[in-house]
Amino acid sequence: MTLTVRDGLRQEVLAANLAIPQVGLATLTWGNVSGVDRAAGVFVIKPSGVPYDDLSLDSLVTVRLADGAVVDGDLRPSTDTETHRCLYLAFPSIGGVTHTHSTHAVAFAQARRDIPVLGTTHADTFNGPIPCTPDLTAEQCAADYEYNTGRVIVDLLKSDDRKAAEVPAALVANHGPFTWGASARKSLEHAIICEAVADIAIHTLALIPTAPPPRHLLERHYTRKHGPDAYYGNPEVTAPAPSRSW
Amino acid sequence: MTLTVRDGLRQEVLAANLAIPQVGLATLTWGNVSGVDRAAGVFVIKPSGVPYDDLSLDSLVTVRLADGAVVDGDLRPSTDTETHRCLYLAFPSIGGVTHTHSTHAVAFAQARRDIPVLGTTHADTFNGPIPCTPDLTAEQCAADYEYNTGRVIVDLLKSDDRKAAEVPAALVANHGPFTWGASARKSLEHAIICEAVADIAIHTLALIPTAPPPRHLLERHYTRKHGPDAYYGNPEVTAPAPSRSW
Amino acid sequence: MTLTVRDGLRQEVLAANLAIPQVGLATLTWGNVSGVDRAAGVFVIKPSGVPYDDLSLDSLVTVRLADGAVVDGDLRPSTDTETHRCLYLAFPSIGGVTHTHSTHAVAFAQARRDIPVLGTTHADTFNGPIPCTPDLTAEQCAADYEYNTGRVIVDLLKSDDRKAAEVPAALVANHGPFTWGASARKSLEHAIICEAVADIAIHTLALIPTAPPPRHLLERHYTRKHGPDAYYGNPEVTAPAPSRSW
Amino acid sequence: MTLTVRDGLRQEVLAANLAIPQVGLATLTWGNVSGVDRAAGVFVIKPSGVPYDDLSLDSLVTVRLADGAVVDGDLRPSTDTETHRCLYLAFPSIGGVTHTHSTHAVAFAQARRDIPVLGTTHADTFNGPIPCTPDLTAEQCAADYEYNTGRVIVDLLKSDDRKAAEVPAALVANHGPFTWGASARKSLEHAIICEAVADIAIHTLALIPTAPPPRHLLERHYTRKHGPDAYYGNPEVTAPAPSRSW
Repeated sequence: MTLTVRDGLRQEVLAANLAIPQVGLATLTWGNVSGVDRAAGVFVIKPSGVPYDDLSLDSLVTVRLADGAVVDGDLRPSTDTETHRCLYLAFPSIGGVTHTHSTHAVAFAQARRDIPVLGTTHADTFNGPIPCTPDLTAEQCAADYEYNTGRVIVDLLKSDDRKAAEVPAALVANHGPFTWGASARKSLEHAIICEAVADIAIHTLALIPTAPPPRHLLERHYTRKHGPDAYYGNPEVTAPAPSRSW
Repeated sequence: MTLTVRDGLRQEVLAANLAIPQVGLATLTWGNVSGVDRAAGVFVIKPSGVPYDDLSLDSLVTVRLADGAVVDGDLRPSTDTETHRCLYLAFPSIGGVTHTHSTHAVAFAQARRDIPVLGTTHADTFNGPIPCTPDLTAEQCAADYEYNTGRVIVDLLKSDDRKAAEVPAALVANHGPFTWGASARKSLEHAIICEAVADIAIHTLALIPTAPPPRHLLERHYTRKHGPDAYYGNPEVTAPAPSRSW
Repeated sequence: MTLTVRDGLRQEVLAANLAIPQVGLATLTWGNVSGVDRAAGVFVIKPSGVPYDDLSLDSLVTVRLADGAVVDGDLRPSTDTETHRCLYLAFPSIGGVTHTHSTHAVAFAQARRDIPVLGTTHADTFNGPIPCTPDLTAEQCAADYEYNTGRVIVDLLKSDDRKAAEVPAALVANHGPFTWGASARKSLEHAIICEAVADIAIHTLALIPTAPPPRHLLERHYTRKHGPDAYYGNPEVTAPAPSRSW
Repeated sequence: MTLTVRDGLRQEVLAANLAIPQVGLATLTWGNVSGVDRAAGVFVIKPSGVPYDDLSLDSLVTVRLADGAVVDGDLRPSTDTETHRCLYLAFPSIGGVTHTHSTHAVAFAQARRDIPVLGTTHADTFNGPIPCTPDLTAEQCAADYEYNTGRVIVDLLKSDDRKAAEVPAALVANHGPFTWGASARKSLEHAIICEAVADIAIHTLALIPTAPPPRHLLERHYTRKHGPDAYYGNPEVTAPAPSRSW
């Protein structure tokens, strides 16, 4: 059975998955990216446990948003597929989701700490701390575990789509980061930034800062990149074709 | 004298040894991988002190399981050969052994601390802490030192083959990690993961987590990858030929 | 409208910007370098938000020193352009400016700590600590934010051009490092060294040194590389053409 | 004026200098290696301040052991030349010297701490802690500074050539590591290992080990690689030609 998704989606999802090891976000087969086609009611995701070197357009798996059924592809989708699906259903503005086990973001998840806003590198992308969920309960682990992994994120954000757009990342306690964005590529970019700010934050905390940054500085940085008054970037050149190298 | 081992074993052992510096697990000539042919009663291992750039199929050494005699190859085998042999003899399910001096795993070994289970990255592969042995005694160092290095691991695991399969790694106190698996390739994969979880654990401990992860979460992750109810991966694509790049 | 700048300036600015990701100083599009032509009253700078892979001579932007107007180039200049302009206006000896979000320098900026002089690696280049500015006030953030980011550096150095030449770097609180030098290439070199000494300093502070280094050692190192008695280097070979790889 | 040194020496010194940035031991032009020809009474060293990319056999400088005079080469030798010369004069068994500013070894030097023997990775090469010198006095900095930098190392080792052979590395307080060995290549290898053990030691100390390793283990590791009972390596294959890649 074959199903047509919008032009470029499969190429973008493939490129984003291939970029994960290139940018140093994952060991072995850890980490996966998906992208959604809301009109077709499906999303495209990495197959489970396949080495990045073996990925091709043909090995990607297409999954139905409504019930998680595989509608295209010969392989089993990522075990984290239900987490992606839960996030897509809860947050209508999301076009892509990335999950990695990147070192410093996982360290915060394992310490069950939010990544605090310690400077403009963080505030340029995330309008607040990257929050860490509470533990999943034994019941949440026993049945529909992967869907419930998305559920604790959705609950943490109180199902607020605007909040999800302003802080497009969360840490699942004792597990690791999930990030999202308007596209698969954007969700990957947020995963890269989440890891970078976690890395800097660990070094910062070791140097014992005495007080949080002033709120007006952080707001300035967020608003110069986001919203109606944004003036960062050259829009026509910052959206390269999905197949190019990152 | 030439001896035939099962098809692909020498290629797999060569590829796994060549991968050690590529994945950043060893400096200079440190680190070695072996693979066993139980039917032939021998294992194939890296020669001692040879730079990775000079390794070839011809330089590998074949050693008899029963007594450690070299039965094929012109070079002296790794000084750690007797440690590998001890592990093969104690644990019948092992098909390959890897030893490295990877930075973060050695730090735990030098601090004589187990690598604790701090999250799902660890639990996906290791069903419990990666244990650190007690010190070798002066007697254990004086004679059969390398065999005794295997012995302290075997004693730590109480010669339990199932335990060895569930936690395929140990740290020798003040020395470093030994890992094993169903094949040479798998033992290398466990060495990569052992180093990755040690790296994340050091960062996590610096962030001072307040409590261990819930047991139900860790069990869920281990069992979704291992045992009768495993549902991670696509078996037909996750066992690539040994000669391909990792 | 086209404007001619002195020979080699555009090539040097392009090469220095392309070097930023190569030397590991920036993630994604973070970081920018500019170079000035005092005679023409302009400086050349990276366009805003453009990936390093897409940079070319044609995408660089030329900005007027006097008022910040774009006088050549089709793209919007870096959002940090006004900070560069402020530094050029305050310090006549500066020929180039670099801004990055390099990990360890940003950690010091986020901890609002000067990078202390802990050894000769630092003293070889910087004749004193790399200072961290105070917080920008709400007023400084509300209007002319980027120009004021340069202003807090200029105020910190009391507009002293000689001081700027002796310590060609500063950290903006909760933001990151700005470095400068006699040329674009030199400002980049100082960014590389600023990050290296920040990295070493964090490890040093973790080892708890008990006292500062002796002043006579530090002075010796600074003066053997700088000033009338300098004897480090072979001048004829240490100024390679700007287009070569770093 | 041209002077003939023993076959292969210049090639070995060039290869060892080129390896410094490749193995990640130095930033920019920091770091230098030399090799000695005792029969000719000279040593060959890197020129001062020349980027590694520009090094060639022709740019190397030959210096007379007796008085430090340049006897061959058009460029000025490394500023650290007198330190190398001091070490060659004090320790007759030395064939090569390496100096770097590698991150973790410099951190120990800046903290003025010896790198302690925390495990077998260290004991495999160094038969004791890598010692850190006291501060140079103001007098030692004022005149013959670089020669005195060698002097504090020689004094620390009490001019003991056997001690220098057993622990072929020292840290100059607030400066960085100097290493040496039977050849230029061996001195570089010791610089690589010095940095690796410093890196592991910093992580180990952060994990708070409770007691030093047992002496019998460390002795066993040192003696299996060094001295009359050494059984590590395959001598015929561990001394590759100096011009090959490391």
